[in-house]
Amino acid sequence: MPFVNPSESRLREPFPGFKVHFVHSDKMTFAHWTIEAGAVLPEHSHPHEQVANVLDGIFELTVDGETKQLGPGSVGIIPSNAVHSGRAITNCRIIDAFYPIREDYR
Amino acid sequence: MPFVNPSESRLREPFPGFKVHFVHSDKMTFAHWTIEAGAVLPEHSHPHEQVANVLDGIFELTVDGETKQLGPGSVGIIPSNAVHSGRAITNCRIIDAFYPIREDYR
Repeated sequence: MPFVNPSESRLREPFPGFKVHFVHSDKMTFAHWTIEAGAVLPEHSHPHEQVANVLDGIFELTVDGETKQLGPGSVGIIPSNAVHSGRAITNCRIIDAFYPIREDYR
Repeated sequence: MPFVNPSESRLREPFPGFKVHFVHSDKMTFAHWTIEAGAVLPEHSHPHEQVANVLDGIFELTVDGETKQLGPGSVGIIPSNAVHSGRAITNCRIIDAFYPIREDYR
């Protein structure tokens, strides 16, 4: 199916305060996040490259020890295996893209 | 640099009414589009897989002969080499992701 409404897929909350619908294409995974102010993304890493597109709100992202508060329209690029963590300064909406597919989020 | 503000990159208009800032990660390309109501995306195809995330507005997308009007939060998945075209029913904002990198949009 070429057309998907992510909100019709299962709503998951892999970290407290981080609610997400996933969409998988052939090679990429997309995470449509709604994040509560104050929610914390614990430090972690994965072999997948990840690109965070901030739609609304302010999200503080740390990548390999470098920290920035990202607002609407900003992008965070997390290379393969880079250690990263974060914190929602306000309620946020973010679309993450991953390559390759997040098989763990199928 | 892990943090990018796409609006600081060159604004391009590859099709009339389709204004875009590109961001490239290691493996993917992202297109942050602002599209004028009525603008037409001519039929084309490319080997890159493409995933369109509609942020605002209504965009009519045709993929391999199947057509749907996509609203905010909807996703269009365009497989590698699929023929696709489109039309902005209203002003739109869309974030497209491509794999692999669009070297032609570097």
